[in-house]
Amino acid sequence: MPKEVKIVFQPSGRTVHALPGTTLLEVSARAGFIIHTPCGGVSKCSKCLVRIRGGNCAPSDNEIATVGAARIAEGFRLACQARVTGPLTIEIPDSSLFQTHQQILTSDSGGVMDLDPRVRKTVIPPLPAPSGESGSDIERLRAAGVTAPLGIAAIRTLPGLLRAPNNMITAVQVDNEVIAVEAGDTSASCYGIAFDIGTTTLVGTLVNLVTGADIAVAARVNPQTSFGDDVISRIQKCRTGKGGLQQLQSSVLDGINRIIDELERKASVNRQSIYEVVFAGNTTMQQILCGIDPSALGEIPFLPAFREALEFSASDLALHVHPCAKVYVFPQIGGFVGGDTTAGIVATRLDRATQPTLLVDIGTNGEIVLKHGDMMLATSVAAGPAFEGARITNGMRATGGAIEKIILNGDVSLNVIGNTKPAGLCGTALIDVAAEMLRVGILDSTGRILPPAEAPRDLAPALRERLVEDKGETHFLLVPAAKSATGSPILLYQRDVRELQLASAAIRAGINILLNMAGVDPADIGEILLAGGFGNFIRRNHARRIGMLPPIPCSRIRFVGNTSSFGAKRALLSSQEKNYAISLIGKVRHIDLSLAPEFQMEFSNAMLMPETDPGNCGE
Amino acid sequence: MPKEVKIVFQPSGRTVHALPGTTLLEVSARAGFIIHTPCGGVSKCSKCLVRIRGGNCAPSDNEIATVGAARIAEGFRLACQARVTGPLTIEIPDSSLFQTHQQILTSDSGGVMDLDPRVRKTVIPPLPAPSGESGSDIERLRAAGVTAPLGIAAIRTLPGLLRAPNNMITAVQVDNEVIAVEAGDTSASCYGIAFDIGTTTLVGTLVNLVTGADIAVAARVNPQTSFGDDVISRIQKCRTGKGGLQQLQSSVLDGINRIIDELERKASVNRQSIYEVVFAGNTTMQQILCGIDPSALGEIPFLPAFREALEFSASDLALHVHPCAKVYVFPQIGGFVGGDTTAGIVATRLDRATQPTLLVDIGTNGEIVLKHGDMMLATSVAAGPAFEGARITNGMRATGGAIEKIILNGDVSLNVIGNTKPAGLCGTALIDVAAEMLRVGILDSTGRILPPAEAPRDLAPALRERLVEDKGETHFLLVPAAKSATGSPILLYQRDVRELQLASAAIRAGINILLNMAGVDPADIGEILLAGGFGNFIRRNHARRIGMLPPIPCSRIRFVGNTSSFGAKRALLSSQEKNYAISLIGKVRHIDLSLAPEFQMEFSNAMLMPETDPGNCGE
Repeated sequence: MPKEVKIVFQPSGRTVHALPGTTLLEVSARAGFIIHTPCGGVSKCSKCLVRIRGGNCAPSDNEIATVGAARIAEGFRLACQARVTGPLTIEIPDSSLFQTHQQILTSDSGGVMDLDPRVRKTVIPPLPAPSGESGSDIERLRAAGVTAPLGIAAIRTLPGLLRAPNNMITAVQVDNEVIAVEAGDTSASCYGIAFDIGTTTLVGTLVNLVTGADIAVAARVNPQTSFGDDVISRIQKCRTGKGGLQQLQSSVLDGINRIIDELERKASVNRQSIYEVVFAGNTTMQQILCGIDPSALGEIPFLPAFREALEFSASDLALHVHPCAKVYVFPQIGGFVGGDTTAGIVATRLDRATQPTLLVDIGTNGEIVLKHGDMMLATSVAAGPAFEGARITNGMRATGGAIEKIILNGDVSLNVIGNTKPAGLCGTALIDVAAEMLRVGILDSTGRILPPAEAPRDLAPALRERLVEDKGETHFLLVPAAKSATGSPILLYQRDVRELQLASAAIRAGINILLNMAGVDPADIGEILLAGGFGNFIRRNHARRIGMLPPIPCSRIRFVGNTSSFGAKRALLSSQEKNYAISLIGKVRHIDLSLAPEFQMEFSNAMLMPETDPGNCGE
Repeated sequence: MPKEVKIVFQPSGRTVHALPGTTLLEVSARAGFIIHTPCGGVSKCSKCLVRIRGGNCAPSDNEIATVGAARIAEGFRLACQARVTGPLTIEIPDSSLFQTHQQILTSDSGGVMDLDPRVRKTVIPPLPAPSGESGSDIERLRAAGVTAPLGIAAIRTLPGLLRAPNNMITAVQVDNEVIAVEAGDTSASCYGIAFDIGTTTLVGTLVNLVTGADIAVAARVNPQTSFGDDVISRIQKCRTGKGGLQQLQSSVLDGINRIIDELERKASVNRQSIYEVVFAGNTTMQQILCGIDPSALGEIPFLPAFREALEFSASDLALHVHPCAKVYVFPQIGGFVGGDTTAGIVATRLDRATQPTLLVDIGTNGEIVLKHGDMMLATSVAAGPAFEGARITNGMRATGGAIEKIILNGDVSLNVIGNTKPAGLCGTALIDVAAEMLRVGILDSTGRILPPAEAPRDLAPALRERLVEDKGETHFLLVPAAKSATGSPILLYQRDVRELQLASAAIRAGINILLNMAGVDPADIGEILLAGGFGNFIRRNHARRIGMLPPIPCSRIRFVGNTSSFGAKRALLSSQEKNYAISLIGKVRHIDLSLAPEFQMEFSNAMLMPETDPGNCGE
């Protein structure tokens, strides 16, 4: 079994361990450095350049061709291509970084974008002075080729602009309406924002609608989390009345506007040049965002207010963009399966998969879609916020101070985000430690942490000492008080394992029911696409080890990134992609697990973790 | 020549003189009582009932059939049908009145209305509880037959309404969009407002969109008059920048909202049930209303910003109606010939006239349209505010205390609005006195008031005493100080006659140029349609006497009322009428008189009043 090697990041000194063969992109992500890959990690855009400051990392021919021999000689590599072969010291240029302090996946799975945005600018050369007794300013514009009807705001600016000394103007058209007329040639300044509205995390990507290029990405915790950490608690708040919906809507809009402000600053783009905002989120998030009471999602038959895409004015949400900008809200599939899932299918082209393929979007709400033959089945499971560190005794979000990786190797080895003293553990570490404890035999398949007396005889003494008995249960000491940031010890409690089991079993039960309904044997799964802000940081073998994913070869489990963000961006860049999204609604069958009698059975079964290790994936 | 008889109105005691044959509707209007005639004065609606309290007024068979013999016996008559035969005392029931203190013409010329409004309500019976795993609230509505897309505001109310105990709902659709969904069956509450936006006066008519009936009318002086009394002064204010446009727009919107508030009170209609507002006004008024800078209307080639109809959301103007209500602004013909003229053609069907016909809308801006053969020519003249009492030394608006009619009959006889002491004279009295002075020979055709020495020898001594010489000019004393409301005498000054000549000549020159261009001899004019808030109060023979109108028989001069209001109402009630309005734009040729070399010539000629009286019209 290949041994993990040490990778140090400069100048922070942050350190992670990785197995040979892992790409530098993945290693960087584990260290909390999100490198942006607009091309999707296919070595085309050269945006993911990193620099080798120590150790050996041989360039591929592909990299040499893309980066150039001179820069290769200086140590530059493409993070998406270069792989770990031994210990390394790496420097990540600021230009390659989008996010440093929070391990939120803002990058996407890339792919070539269709460029056919609904926003278009037309530059009109100075118009001759009018003559004759009839006509109007609008008709002068028509004669110059702008035939779409003008919005009232655009008409208001027209007389002044047409009579300015140098009256070259630019018309801004969205679909079949001219929403603005601007002084001069502003054709190069044309932007939109694609938003992933997660229960826990908001991610906004500022996109140049002329070139299709990403300009900046910003992410924040959804401020709604202060009202409850899952969709059910948000729905409950709305059901109690008393302005709950308005509070939640204001809260998320505040977060969104702060992201827009940040994007504006980062990219030096004027908000008046942002003409479309596309949102993708689950049904509850989308309804609250739009100001539509989600109470009905809290009662049988869990009916969303809409499935079709919604379009309205950005001014309705008081977004910090052009007042006549348009909002596009992704079409929804049904129940809790919302626009983020539709966007996920748009991002991955799941409907075109030729073998049985699962899209698993792991978040506070887990969404699962199975494509098999002519069939697409989608469902949603309440994984809860355990993967995001909530409801775990010493859990925390994947921010600075969070343990993000745990290896049991005679003792406990761990990586901490930000290279500081650990303050708690985040979701990936939670999965890691459970999987590792199963491996070394101190957790049984029922999820019970074994007391020292029941632990394997060959267990390393350092690990045995960490098994802490307390009132008939056993907990596992991860960090002693002296070494923790808080001065208190960090433990994995027995009840934390139960939370993890609930989350993991929910996803697995969802997967199993869809496979059963479609008559697909797990062994026949062609591919599992792991998506979501969290999905990309999971160790695939550990996800299989705890039973969250079926025991298929790791090579068939692929990280596809934040598909909600990526699908939203595709729709932002292309009206055809919007049509594609809408066309999916009738093609995907929504499975309501609360109505599936076999769900409780599958869920109970999935609470049991596999007896044996399905094998290492090389992660 | 028949002698005028005295008509007394009870309980106010207000008195006017009228010639036999005049309808009670017209007599009432002269006394300042605006009786509303939704049917257009064709004895169909019975809304114009008045009661004879003294004197004889024989009913026609038509009236007996419409009103009923019993009520006829009680003295009730239809004001639109009953005519003066001798002295009368009349009581006007409050139910027949819309406007008592201001002589603003709010009634219209009637006619059968096409009823095909763009606002429609659909009542949806309680929907069955949904079942199954897919669908949405919107789709439940679709299944009930509402197929138009829903606005975001409507979607917001849907989940709550569909889950109310008795979930009968009403969908409000405007064209192809559902703008609102309301609890219960609200199908009977569906209203719109038609506005005439005059330079001097605003008139709003609240209309029931289900029945087509007028519900209430309210009028106010356009608050913009505080910034200048004609369109040029308003344009100038915008041209100086410094927020002039915003000030003027706020000003007119404030007036409009006060009218809406008044209509809401008068009719006990909730503003949330008002879904469309149609505006008709001249180009300057419409552009300012919409917030479009009219500066370009103040410079050659006087180009409006738009000719097509504008449609946008009422919330853009913060109107006191349903927030998703629609605004429709009338299409404009060109230059200063705006939506009020288009509305005037819609109201009168001028384009279908089979003989040469003139539409003359007399206001601060005068608009003239000539239909002849396949041709329609339209122009605008700056009559100035003299007809509205402004720029006249002792002039005033047609409100309480204004002299509205003057007869020289051995001495000066006059009617005062509100039956109080006179405070000044309004436009109709100005025309009256000039025409009467011409008749008795104390004003010559150049517009000079003759000094006593030049007055006819047979002039009544009482009139001769009123000729006041002052620094080489002569003025005419209308009311001595002791009898005036102000304690100062009321005179017609020589310079007031000049103002009248300018106003009158502008209109006549416009008429003449259009006749010349079309090759129509004045004698061949089939009909002159006199329109405008002021037009209906003019004595036709006097308008001819001073030369404002060509000397055609009075029988060919017809009052058509406030055609701007009436056309706006037609468009409010029918999408076909809107299409009709738009279709007119290409058919009417706009004549810019500032570009017509013959205008100065015609204007100079028209400054001369006719030498001889073209004859009495029986008014």
